[in-house]
Amino acid sequence: MRIQHLQQRLGSGQSLLITEPANIRYLCGFTGSAGCLLLSASQLFLITDYRYTAMAQSECGDKPLTIICRDRAHETLAACIDRLLPNQQQLLVEFAHLTVAALRELEQQMPALNISAAPNWLAEMRACKDEVELAATRQAVHIAEQALAWWLPQVQLGMTEQSLATLLEDKLFALGAEALSFPTIVLSGPRSALPHGKPSERQLQRGDCLLLDFGAIVAGYRSDITRTYFIGEASERQRAFYQAVLQAQLAALAIAGPGVSGHAVNAAAQQVLQASGFGEFAGEGIGHGTGLVLHEYPLMREGCEVRLQAGMVVTIEPGLYQDGFGGVRIEDDILITDSGIEILSQSPKELTILCA
Amino acid sequence: MRIQHLQQRLGSGQSLLITEPANIRYLCGFTGSAGCLLLSASQLFLITDYRYTAMAQSECGDKPLTIICRDRAHETLAACIDRLLPNQQQLLVEFAHLTVAALRELEQQMPALNISAAPNWLAEMRACKDEVELAATRQAVHIAEQALAWWLPQVQLGMTEQSLATLLEDKLFALGAEALSFPTIVLSGPRSALPHGKPSERQLQRGDCLLLDFGAIVAGYRSDITRTYFIGEASERQRAFYQAVLQAQLAALAIAGPGVSGHAVNAAAQQVLQASGFGEFAGEGIGHGTGLVLHEYPLMREGCEVRLQAGMVVTIEPGLYQDGFGGVRIEDDILITDSGIEILSQSPKELTILCA
Repeated sequence: MRIQHLQQRLGSGQSLLITEPANIRYLCGFTGSAGCLLLSASQLFLITDYRYTAMAQSECGDKPLTIICRDRAHETLAACIDRLLPNQQQLLVEFAHLTVAALRELEQQMPALNISAAPNWLAEMRACKDEVELAATRQAVHIAEQALAWWLPQVQLGMTEQSLATLLEDKLFALGAEALSFPTIVLSGPRSALPHGKPSERQLQRGDCLLLDFGAIVAGYRSDITRTYFIGEASERQRAFYQAVLQAQLAALAIAGPGVSGHAVNAAAQQVLQASGFGEFAGEGIGHGTGLVLHEYPLMREGCEVRLQAGMVVTIEPGLYQDGFGGVRIEDDILITDSGIEILSQSPKELTILCA
Repeated sequence: MRIQHLQQRLGSGQSLLITEPANIRYLCGFTGSAGCLLLSASQLFLITDYRYTAMAQSECGDKPLTIICRDRAHETLAACIDRLLPNQQQLLVEFAHLTVAALRELEQQMPALNISAAPNWLAEMRACKDEVELAATRQAVHIAEQALAWWLPQVQLGMTEQSLATLLEDKLFALGAEALSFPTIVLSGPRSALPHGKPSERQLQRGDCLLLDFGAIVAGYRSDITRTYFIGEASERQRAFYQAVLQAQLAALAIAGPGVSGHAVNAAAQQVLQASGFGEFAGEGIGHGTGLVLHEYPLMREGCEVRLQAGMVVTIEPGLYQDGFGGVRIEDDILITDSGIEILSQSPKELTILCA
């Protein structure tokens, strides 16, 4: 279906070279780390090498494609394309993934061919998930939330960020995660102001913020959830930060739905953060599509006029980050539906004090 | 030192934009996943955004550079470069890393600037390791070999490839690996013929080949070791495969040293494999540099005329892979020295039968 959908868009003499690994996996199921897909209106080739040929046969043997085992020492990719699809006039390639060096090589070796940017077809197709993709995503969220519920009572004063991250990751795997969506972020105290910091040997102390951003992968699809807790107590300022972020997130969730742009969703959250008096500490952008890749099209940020559509899975994750003080971020994964949204992650968001 | 070394190569009006994450880390220590370095002959900027500014300060605060927190919603990378280094005539960029889309954007937004390919400076610098890099590499090898020695007696009939991989990975972390060099490859029976296969639920059986390819990361630097064992017994053909690969590996190790090309090292191994009568099952290429990235410059394969130099760390890993029968690969990490090589990985390579 996906392949035919793409092939219908190709004219005669026109072909499409797909090099982005997630796009390759999306179209034919191949997960090897070296290979590309070559499509014309009527043909489809998976070009790989001896290291991945058997994997290709087992992963894509049922797909309407021909597996090509290229001898890299004796045939360039350009020569291979030329052999498989002679007499092409135009080759569309993925400018957002292909390196300049790879493009130059193709151009030099196929001087008669018009090599142009492929439209954004794959990103648009991938943004709207089908039932199989949604089932995997729901399971990835379910595993993450089960792990979180188990992890929370384990949190104790004196534990390090790193040990807390490892504890959660082990549980994610035990519950069936095939991999982590990304290395788990556990940040405490002033370190919680690092929006993408890495867990350190810092020990949990009374009065800390504890920011946890994590997710699981199931059949290639991801969850991506953030919660922020307080340790032992929460100061007035911490509480005010938390409420501002929570209200901003709820405002974004309230407006999100089909036909609404990522720009508008972001604006709804930013307006609340600005009104809170903490606007100077707000991060840029408040979310992104997620799926086979953690950060996918569309984005929830200023200037993103793409409108949300039913089937899209996106994160909503506003945050406040004050250097030296700490940070708060609250993130859910949501599914855009025909009538609005379904919030996939349901872990509690009330202000919670751990180790009280 | 590294930074000055690069800056000395830049003329006036010439600047260098470094976007490859490992090159950025190599030059200034920054490990965030969004950022780039901009160098002129006299200035150095690390351009990142609010998510990574604090990380940049803690990782590179002691380096002679200025950290720029770019507001991505309101300043393009091109505008930022133009603001930091006005009146430049030429900008060198990394064609092997930069995407076509990113180059097009720079070209459109800085039409007066000559944007050209940077020479291979960074890959060449990174290929030769200094004492700090070597110490980390040695520790990465040490951890891998300790884990292997512990793991071997745990291997039992009926265990799955996946459970064997997890067992080894847990041990690598327990011994101090900060990450895996790559997801551990454990392949058994006919599956060992997949040069880059993934562990499955297949259970170990008597008569299997068991191929293990794995490594640890310490302070960013990697080990990458492969051993192949036999389960319960080894057939004549398995023994012949093993001896051919072992002799090929020893031949490559015997010739490797300063001044020898990757082409010649590969040829030495391939000659033995061809003479064994199993030449049709030989993989292409038999090794690669390794360091901050798993596969680095230089390569040990046909046509690679780059000569090895003292300080380079490369793998030597010939293999034979017969579809339906199985595969054997033996891989060591070696350091090129002034007088020859030092084999960093010392785990035994005699044909070994497990679960006998």
